[in-house]
Amino acid sequence: MKLTILGCHSATPRVDTHPTSQVLEIKNNIFLIDCGEGTQVQLRKNRVKFSRIKHIFISHLHGDHFFGLVGLISTFRLLTRETDLHVYGPKGIKDVITLQLKLGNSWTDYKLIFHELTSKESELIYEDDKVTVHTIPLKHRIYTNGFLFREKLGERKLDLNATLNANIDKSYYRKLKQGFDVVNEDGKLILNADVTKDPAKPKSYAYCSDTAYTETIIPIIKNSDVLYHESTFLEKHAHLSNPTKHSSAIDAATIAQKAEVGQLVLGHYSTRYDDISGFKEEAQTVFENVELAEAGKVFTF
Amino acid sequence: MKLTILGCHSATPRVDTHPTSQVLEIKNNIFLIDCGEGTQVQLRKNRVKFSRIKHIFISHLHGDHFFGLVGLISTFRLLTRETDLHVYGPKGIKDVITLQLKLGNSWTDYKLIFHELTSKESELIYEDDKVTVHTIPLKHRIYTNGFLFREKLGERKLDLNATLNANIDKSYYRKLKQGFDVVNEDGKLILNADVTKDPAKPKSYAYCSDTAYTETIIPIIKNSDVLYHESTFLEKHAHLSNPTKHSSAIDAATIAQKAEVGQLVLGHYSTRYDDISGFKEEAQTVFENVELAEAGKVFTF
Repeated sequence: MKLTILGCHSATPRVDTHPTSQVLEIKNNIFLIDCGEGTQVQLRKNRVKFSRIKHIFISHLHGDHFFGLVGLISTFRLLTRETDLHVYGPKGIKDVITLQLKLGNSWTDYKLIFHELTSKESELIYEDDKVTVHTIPLKHRIYTNGFLFREKLGERKLDLNATLNANIDKSYYRKLKQGFDVVNEDGKLILNADVTKDPAKPKSYAYCSDTAYTETIIPIIKNSDVLYHESTFLEKHAHLSNPTKHSSAIDAATIAQKAEVGQLVLGHYSTRYDDISGFKEEAQTVFENVELAEAGKVFTF
Repeated sequence: MKLTILGCHSATPRVDTHPTSQVLEIKNNIFLIDCGEGTQVQLRKNRVKFSRIKHIFISHLHGDHFFGLVGLISTFRLLTRETDLHVYGPKGIKDVITLQLKLGNSWTDYKLIFHELTSKESELIYEDDKVTVHTIPLKHRIYTNGFLFREKLGERKLDLNATLNANIDKSYYRKLKQGFDVVNEDGKLILNADVTKDPAKPKSYAYCSDTAYTETIIPIIKNSDVLYHESTFLEKHAHLSNPTKHSSAIDAATIAQKAEVGQLVLGHYSTRYDDISGFKEEAQTVFENVELAEAGKVFTF
């Protein structure tokens, strides 16, 4: 998986900080996660090809996570897009986008498909032959979901030398990759385990923003390779977390530690902080493997 | 008047070009005209104080002229604005902004007052003691207005030497400024014209975007000091003007010449042109006093 941060600050877009948006690439699939104002310019800056975006996931309908969506949808139209676009987000997202297209008499020529979310339980909302996406119900001021992206287990890998030595006809290679034993050219049974290797361990990425500290997400995100968890506040402002339903760096790290994830990526910093290094320092008092999201930064895992 | 261009390209925001927005300052009043995506960042870059914006005029509901409005309104809320905000724009603008604030449960604490426009005739939509604003009905794919900003004639100016020599009591200065004759300390009638000078000629600014070539606007904008007229296309693409209801540089210059304005400012360039110098060259074949709008450029008149 390749995660590109387009923006990772809360509240208002500013000259050098951008509201939330991320691009997640999984085996040539591109998923856009949240879409604050200015996301389309950030996509250009980071050279993400617009036509490769086919699925957009919106966590909730606060402006810093979705005010850039209607502009992106409109730009796709101006670029004469023909490919379907799927948008996953809270109920209401279809109405508000549709109303804006209607007022501008700017209907898309491509097919725009909304998947409106209402469930308060985690649910499967996307699946193809390589990836599943489940919602992660979060605890915020309005209805909000995080998203859990999981690779599927791939096919077994041929041990090419062993396969050749075992004198197996090429037409059986498909079966081998699928885990079957096969009969070779000499009529002998070849055990799958002798000529194949385990596929790469499937990776998973959990995106949790915006949310107050809530342990209800732990069973859902358990053992994820990477967890992006919002951390709006440092400890000195932690008293603001509960009233605003946001988290501190310590909150995020506590969730990472309890969910036993591989790595924690922090973001959604309050714009009150000019220097974000304190987020990492505070989180690392609880959980060691912490990285800071920054616009333009790429995480590969 | 001081006009600051925040963005002057059509269609989509890009890394180095910005959709339409302008700030017009008239005697300490700040008017924001149109508000494409990214306007709030452009306001920051150009150091316009957010709290000074009390009136926003939206020409039409195409994204490149209004997708930045809801974000700006939300940012005002986050900055704990208390001052009323007036928004002037086509019918529908209230619904679409309100729906977004409702979905985010992010109602403004300050008063948000919409003035929805439906008239196809020019009408007075704003007036204070210094300025009037009239609509300029334009010819575009959807309902669109330009805006004509006119200073009111100020008070007469005292010729201080003449006033002192005429031995006039200071309590009469107000009357003099208002144009009255007065009686001096010696009981002699002093003619207003002998001790005052004409006030500065009131300035006017006509904003016309987006529009096809239409002579119906000429009587409204006649003799304006500065005309901003959209020029989306160069001559080589002038055949696109009619189907898209936009103008070429020559169209804009022809309107400027027929309306006998003082200066023409061009903008709303199609993003297909990397070099905009051709707009000025083509317009100047028809009308001499042409300037090119560019983001960050300031015109004082």
